[in-house]
Amino acid sequence: MQNDRIRLKSLLGKVMTPEEAALFIKDGMTVGMSGFTRAGEAKAVPLALAERAAHEEFKITLMTGASLGNDLDKILTHSGVLARRLPFQSDPVLRRAINSGEVMFIDQHLSETVELLRSRQLGPVNIAVLEAVAITPEGGIIPTTSIGNSATFGILAEKVIIEINLTQPLALEGIHDVYIPTRRPFREPIPVVAPESRVGLPFIPIDPAKIIAIVVTKKLDSASTILPPDSETRQIAGHLIEFLSHEVKRGRLSLQLQPLQAGIGTIANAVLHGLIESPFHGLKMYSEVLQDSVFELFDAGKLDFASCSSITVSETKYREVVPDIDKYKSRLILRPQEISNHPEVIRRLGLICLNTALECDIYGNINSTHVNGTHMMNGIGGSGDFARNASYAVFVTKSLAKNGNISSVVPMVTHVDHNEHDVDLMVTEVGLADLRGLAPRERARTIIENCTHPIYRDGLRDYFKRALKRGGHTPHLLEEAFSWHDAFHKRGTMKDACAEHRVTPPAPNLEKRSL
Amino acid sequence: MQNDRIRLKSLLGKVMTPEEAALFIKDGMTVGMSGFTRAGEAKAVPLALAERAAHEEFKITLMTGASLGNDLDKILTHSGVLARRLPFQSDPVLRRAINSGEVMFIDQHLSETVELLRSRQLGPVNIAVLEAVAITPEGGIIPTTSIGNSATFGILAEKVIIEINLTQPLALEGIHDVYIPTRRPFREPIPVVAPESRVGLPFIPIDPAKIIAIVVTKKLDSASTILPPDSETRQIAGHLIEFLSHEVKRGRLSLQLQPLQAGIGTIANAVLHGLIESPFHGLKMYSEVLQDSVFELFDAGKLDFASCSSITVSETKYREVVPDIDKYKSRLILRPQEISNHPEVIRRLGLICLNTALECDIYGNINSTHVNGTHMMNGIGGSGDFARNASYAVFVTKSLAKNGNISSVVPMVTHVDHNEHDVDLMVTEVGLADLRGLAPRERARTIIENCTHPIYRDGLRDYFKRALKRGGHTPHLLEEAFSWHDAFHKRGTMKDACAEHRVTPPAPNLEKRSL
Repeated sequence: MQNDRIRLKSLLGKVMTPEEAALFIKDGMTVGMSGFTRAGEAKAVPLALAERAAHEEFKITLMTGASLGNDLDKILTHSGVLARRLPFQSDPVLRRAINSGEVMFIDQHLSETVELLRSRQLGPVNIAVLEAVAITPEGGIIPTTSIGNSATFGILAEKVIIEINLTQPLALEGIHDVYIPTRRPFREPIPVVAPESRVGLPFIPIDPAKIIAIVVTKKLDSASTILPPDSETRQIAGHLIEFLSHEVKRGRLSLQLQPLQAGIGTIANAVLHGLIESPFHGLKMYSEVLQDSVFELFDAGKLDFASCSSITVSETKYREVVPDIDKYKSRLILRPQEISNHPEVIRRLGLICLNTALECDIYGNINSTHVNGTHMMNGIGGSGDFARNASYAVFVTKSLAKNGNISSVVPMVTHVDHNEHDVDLMVTEVGLADLRGLAPRERARTIIENCTHPIYRDGLRDYFKRALKRGGHTPHLLEEAFSWHDAFHKRGTMKDACAEHRVTPPAPNLEKRSL
Repeated sequence: MQNDRIRLKSLLGKVMTPEEAALFIKDGMTVGMSGFTRAGEAKAVPLALAERAAHEEFKITLMTGASLGNDLDKILTHSGVLARRLPFQSDPVLRRAINSGEVMFIDQHLSETVELLRSRQLGPVNIAVLEAVAITPEGGIIPTTSIGNSATFGILAEKVIIEINLTQPLALEGIHDVYIPTRRPFREPIPVVAPESRVGLPFIPIDPAKIIAIVVTKKLDSASTILPPDSETRQIAGHLIEFLSHEVKRGRLSLQLQPLQAGIGTIANAVLHGLIESPFHGLKMYSEVLQDSVFELFDAGKLDFASCSSITVSETKYREVVPDIDKYKSRLILRPQEISNHPEVIRRLGLICLNTALECDIYGNINSTHVNGTHMMNGIGGSGDFARNASYAVFVTKSLAKNGNISSVVPMVTHVDHNEHDVDLMVTEVGLADLRGLAPRERARTIIENCTHPIYRDGLRDYFKRALKRGGHTPHLLEEAFSWHDAFHKRGTMKDACAEHRVTPPAPNLEKRSL
């Protein structure tokens, strides 16, 4: 094993137990760990760290690529080790700790964390803990099923701990493309001009002298938890395919479309899955996470190439894909999330971007993160990187939640992650709203008529109609804007919110305020 | 004159009156006009168009770079010609028409309009009307004091009308750098790697056969309306200079800082003015508009280079600078706004970006556009292009407005143009909040203690304290979030809003909603 996996012989003496390695992590440190959407996270050292916390009090700042698998965020939260966490998470236990104020969570655009570290506006990173397939003879680190922020963590960290994971096949070697932007003020353009552009190294180049510990593990990545397509997600896919076909007819797109991005989650996965039965072919992806549907698109002969920062698939798909990765390798690149999510590259390639809304409002502002405007769900992730710079920024959601007691389209969202400037298309199972080139009043009519569930449509029409009487570029009744949320929280349903307000209060004395 | 200014002789026959040229513009057309922040707009043809509307009914969609000078937006609104207007404006009469729903206004990130035109998601542009210093022997159009969207309007339009403005000196020739991104999917990196990078042509290359009319005018650009620095804007500048000095001490910046951007307006101009007395030198700007302070920084020997899309200065400064532009020419570049505001270039250069907030909330979300969440002021302009991609995203505002009856820091902004992810520093005359690496609860404490006016501070502390009891990553009392706005509109002041709510209502039954 060790000859294959630790090819720089001078490092063989650094092999130790996870418990020994975890001892390097001290109270108050900032630790950068590998891991992006439950793939490729360091597994043994964080577990050992959590165990150590049973008999020793210490706190760390934990940075990763995105969410961790193997319940690590839960275990670390329970152990009380986390003082601060960034830039993304999706664990219910950590979520509760964030919402109660026990853990300070910094919710960042996924492309930005390493920019802040590099310019020393965040950090320094004391220790990086990185999962690897192997270490090259030069001391280069070959990542596993994700890169995330691992490259910059490794390069900037004072000390590095490597977890060699024997369950991650050596065949992953060569799939990674590690490009690090040059230093300002001498920064050059990022040379990625297509999803298939290879512009970097197949490993993370670090000084081997910084490697203080190597741990050998056999823990598997966690399986993705997304649900299979259902009738509503199929309808969403259908609306989008119809729209894209129309764009082809208008000569705006070819049947190859433009490179696709899809956020993590059930709905985005289902929409991609829907492309199997579409007229499009020769597709390419430039995305952050590859889910099951991507491999189905490969197998269906629809997809030519996929660039991403991680591979997060179901247990079945994992067993099928990862051991047999050679089959896909020439059509896959894993990049640092800074590059997969880089505004420069996203804008250049002209992506079609699909991301999920938690709720949207009649003007097309999107809440992706905060339940009731206050309680964090997961985080903004890459949705801002992609939607802002997309050629087509598409947001998808089912029109109802909680057995119909919540309308996903509300008068005003309680938290804005993406404002109307960054939302081109809104799609629910009811239909699609094409918002391009529309003013807010036109956006409202389009969203209400095309995307809202019939049981809430009259209520939204009524709100909008009464708001229009007050005037404004973006008409609202501020005192009533959150009344649907209020109704849900008081009575468990938004259904009666629409009926509550029928008399328009007099227009306020709206004085102009000079800038 | 005409030999100097119209160097392609075959075009001499196209010279006509503005009234004749305006006749080419028909009902229902989309017209792209030059003009960016009151500089370099086409002047004679839009005036003639407005006059024609006195005896003929027609409507157009008008696209420009940004706002127009010479009261053109007002005159065109009065004449009833505007059906649709994008991507920015700052005229009180047009603003009223937008807020009453007479004119549909599409408020866009200034870098995006031409992307949408080029991909045919907007448009087509039927006629472009461009102010020019001269037409080259090849038919190239040399713009005047702004480029804005003129290059792409000219290249994509079916027909082009040129206004040769004799008051714009021939010395402007050579100051422009017209680079147009290559076509997707073959788009290359934009080769700008420093503010001083020259990467394009000194004129707009169009097919001379498309030029259907040339009009000769002598109308001046309008003077900028910004106010001189006052004691509060000087305090804001002082806080920012202190912060930047601290960053230099920490080794994060050198005394040359990083290239600067400043949004249009009195406060941003005053902050730049303050740099004259700062320890920084060898500065560069990569901005959209150059205001008076930029030339003062040049004259003070502080500024080495400035790149922009327009020059918008006061009457005094205009008389000083424009006829004598040769003095500054080697240190100035005017670019298309797509390039001055391009996410790719902004991120690459690592800009320090100063933009103005209309209001901000305790978590650092920014409202730049909507009074009371409903009534459009001017538009988002370039603030989103810059803040999202900045190395340092700074928002400035005075802590009070309307003689102290409005607090610029409120519990929750009524409209979000920039959310907390994109705001690194908030500065008022009271002080500076450094929000980098902070979670929302920490951001709130920092903003309340450092930026709010003492007369509103207790009220915000009280709101935050009571919101904390409800919990959440971003604690709020939704039913009270807009109560300060409500108080202002009902009683003309926010001062009593703080006292209204002292008893915390019970926490709502906050059920989790799954994504």
